[in-house]
Amino acid sequence: MLAAELAARLGAELWPSTAGDVELRQVGGLAEAEPHTLSFLANARYRRHLRSTRAGAVLLRAAERGACPPGVAALIHADPYTAFARAAALLHPQPAPTPGVDPSAYVHESAVVEGARIEAFAWVGPGAVVGPGTWLEAGAVVGPGARVGRDCRLMPHSVVAAGCALGDRVWLNPGAVVGGEGFGFAPGPAGHTKVPQLGGAIVEDDVEVGVHSAIDRATLPDQHTRVGAGARLDNFVQIGHGAEVGPNSLLVAYSGLAGSARIGANVVLAAKAAVMGHLELGEGVRVAAGSLVVRDAPAGATLAGSPAIDHARWLAQVAAAPELADRVRALERRLAELERRLPSPTDP
Amino acid sequence: MLAAELAARLGAELWPSTAGDVELRQVGGLAEAEPHTLSFLANARYRRHLRSTRAGAVLLRAAERGACPPGVAALIHADPYTAFARAAALLHPQPAPTPGVDPSAYVHESAVVEGARIEAFAWVGPGAVVGPGTWLEAGAVVGPGARVGRDCRLMPHSVVAAGCALGDRVWLNPGAVVGGEGFGFAPGPAGHTKVPQLGGAIVEDDVEVGVHSAIDRATLPDQHTRVGAGARLDNFVQIGHGAEVGPNSLLVAYSGLAGSARIGANVVLAAKAAVMGHLELGEGVRVAAGSLVVRDAPAGATLAGSPAIDHARWLAQVAAAPELADRVRALERRLAELERRLPSPTDP
Amino acid sequence: MLAAELAARLGAELWPSTAGDVELRQVGGLAEAEPHTLSFLANARYRRHLRSTRAGAVLLRAAERGACPPGVAALIHADPYTAFARAAALLHPQPAPTPGVDPSAYVHESAVVEGARIEAFAWVGPGAVVGPGTWLEAGAVVGPGARVGRDCRLMPHSVVAAGCALGDRVWLNPGAVVGGEGFGFAPGPAGHTKVPQLGGAIVEDDVEVGVHSAIDRATLPDQHTRVGAGARLDNFVQIGHGAEVGPNSLLVAYSGLAGSARIGANVVLAAKAAVMGHLELGEGVRVAAGSLVVRDAPAGATLAGSPAIDHARWLAQVAAAPELADRVRALERRLAELERRLPSPTDP
Repeated sequence: MLAAELAARLGAELWPSTAGDVELRQVGGLAEAEPHTLSFLANARYRRHLRSTRAGAVLLRAAERGACPPGVAALIHADPYTAFARAAALLHPQPAPTPGVDPSAYVHESAVVEGARIEAFAWVGPGAVVGPGTWLEAGAVVGPGARVGRDCRLMPHSVVAAGCALGDRVWLNPGAVVGGEGFGFAPGPAGHTKVPQLGGAIVEDDVEVGVHSAIDRATLPDQHTRVGAGARLDNFVQIGHGAEVGPNSLLVAYSGLAGSARIGANVVLAAKAAVMGHLELGEGVRVAAGSLVVRDAPAGATLAGSPAIDHARWLAQVAAAPELADRVRALERRLAELERRLPSPTDP
Repeated sequence: MLAAELAARLGAELWPSTAGDVELRQVGGLAEAEPHTLSFLANARYRRHLRSTRAGAVLLRAAERGACPPGVAALIHADPYTAFARAAALLHPQPAPTPGVDPSAYVHESAVVEGARIEAFAWVGPGAVVGPGTWLEAGAVVGPGARVGRDCRLMPHSVVAAGCALGDRVWLNPGAVVGGEGFGFAPGPAGHTKVPQLGGAIVEDDVEVGVHSAIDRATLPDQHTRVGAGARLDNFVQIGHGAEVGPNSLLVAYSGLAGSARIGANVVLAAKAAVMGHLELGEGVRVAAGSLVVRDAPAGATLAGSPAIDHARWLAQVAAAPELADRVRALERRLAELERRLPSPTDP
Repeated sequence: MLAAELAARLGAELWPSTAGDVELRQVGGLAEAEPHTLSFLANARYRRHLRSTRAGAVLLRAAERGACPPGVAALIHADPYTAFARAAALLHPQPAPTPGVDPSAYVHESAVVEGARIEAFAWVGPGAVVGPGTWLEAGAVVGPGARVGRDCRLMPHSVVAAGCALGDRVWLNPGAVVGGEGFGFAPGPAGHTKVPQLGGAIVEDDVEVGVHSAIDRATLPDQHTRVGAGARLDNFVQIGHGAEVGPNSLLVAYSGLAGSARIGANVVLAAKAAVMGHLELGEGVRVAAGSLVVRDAPAGATLAGSPAIDHARWLAQVAAAPELADRVRALERRLAELERRLPSPTDP
């Protein structure tokens, strides 16, 4: 694809404008790029690689244009990483899976799988529905009565358990589980009583679920654990029974919600952040890595710590902590000196 | 089922006593309940839903009876959540799996699987034993010589590795692994030497293991990692090689034991709590979320923090932390003022 | 095997030297050992078991020789645990898997699997290569174009995704995934744009990967996430896209690297330790359990805390913390007393 065409499709400005006939065949990093490679600069950490790159063209912000070496076309874009994501999809189109059911797959006679690709050892239970363009890789399981939309990808050993549902274009990484039983029991001193998990789990359109992430089914009939459209779950994320994740939220590795927690749209849970059960976090809340959220938070809050507090207060606390003991020691010394010079009247 | 019959089976008191002929067909939440729904109030957070519920009956504590709206029967019970768990099982009985081996399952000729249901792509190795009433879902693996008791459920892709054992009524969620190899090696500067993992793993009766949780096998022959009867492991729990979990203990998501750690009966590890290797925690120890236990703890201890200390001390520390820097700053200012007014005799 | 022969093969000194004809048939713990058992003492915690052991011989350091009871042969070695690891492999040799492809396995006609053992429901995609002596257990997946070296073991449901590669003698525990898609997208306020993950993942020789651990593929073509030779990954470890793990590094349970992080050889990440994206840790860096590394660290650094700081500083901080509030309170009281006795001249 020529740089001029790519610039037009991405809404990028080409500079110099004469570079339109550079041919771009692939994407690549600045350091490894070759003359037909489109690269990008989005993280300042890699700016040093820009000056020596051999790329044919580089997506970058206007302010970085000056650092682009001679002979390398600049594709100027306000959001070079998003533009790069789109360029990568254009230059490296992924072939759609060929529809068909492998003879070693298991598809119950009452299941509907028209137009899907079902690999060997994939398992589709009674009454399940798998939409056209969807790809079930080896060992993927769609349980009894479960529904999977169009153009989904269920990588090896991912599971959509009985009665659960995926929207369209949902991507489950290997081992992702939608509809696990969750941690449902009534505790008791002489043993715990299992609470049957009778609800479902729904993953809406355009959600991506990382390796081994677990979205448990809801406890009560007619209730559903829900992951909103466009949300992204990294690896090892857990969504407890009855919890809700708002659209476009981002949950980084090992983060999760305990049962019945609800987070709004565009929430970000950094790695290992956890939200306790039954809490509500408003739209756009951001939680720092490793934090434990123990109370509700309004829209836009930024939290950190364990238990989590306002991020700015937490930062101040962390900044002060290392020297606090030193300061207390200095105070103790100075105070003792004053006390020595000003003996108490009751001292002998 | 009529409210009177249900009350009798649960040992609950019906109020008003004339409500016995209310018909209950399902369980449900207070907010979504319909006239034939049995609901419950166990968490005060949801009390506001009680006043407006349309449920036919509500399980609750005696003290909440007054808030039950007219026309809604109260089923009064000292432990409404346990009673609800039992009611849910009565109103929504789960059908037992029909015994039989799917033609696409693999069962070694020397394995014994009488009375079990074995789905397609489940794998039962040589010499393995699977008890009656047990259900192996798609991709479940019972390794060579492994033993699985009666009425167990092995959800998709759960694994009982070679020589390991499950008791009766054990439930493995998708991807749960009993008998992984563990982190067994002798470290060395020029490379690490693998320690063959020659022991087993035993999961006793009535244990539930969450999605992807991992119970590693023991290192030494004739030794076993052990999870005691009635214990509940949430998702992503790890039990290191040779560790022991006491009966009825509760391990919340991402919590775990390092190798050879031992915890007594009725221990609770909250989410992400960890116990280091070779430690012993007595009966009933409780560990707060995210804590790291670094030394033995006696029965009944409650721990928090990383490294974990007594929970009350930790709470005081956490409560004091945010303002401690402010207090030190105030002390520094006041002390400087005193020093200014009481110059040292050695000052010029 | 006679004690004399074993001592010779391990490079251990036998004491008393007359004990050479003790026959050793198995390894075992000090407490459970029987007369033909070889045991070991490496952790001082178990020294009390040495005095009463019934073992035929015990591997231990020279300094412990005196505590060895009469009639028990001592095998003296500077590193008894490494010696024990080697002895266990000698006394309990693991049979190599018999080559062959189960009729219920799926091996694409263009794949090469000579000399490997492929169990039922294992899946080998088009163009994949599986080396001799390698064992694919039930449900193991080797994706299209993936390469697996010699003498590897892929336990049930482990996955080597398309185009990824394992060296020789690599061991994947159940559910381990090499080549997941990673957390690749360009975030945006109106939705996130998927970044196609076009690179690969390479696991070098002699690496062991724990249960469910996830090594994501790299983002860019011709780039690879890499785990260096001899590294050991415990359960639930994550290696983000494009990250690199140096040879012989040790990553304990739940630890991990975010995308593009790089750690050198012989690094140790204790349980739940995390390294943020794009960072570099030099050779031999050690990170304490639960720590969050937020900046680069030079070779040999030892880090702890969240955010991680120098380990010694962190220890001092942790040691001071519990009593700091008490000390500040005492200072406040003493200072108030001084102020009372030295009224400000401006006071009335």
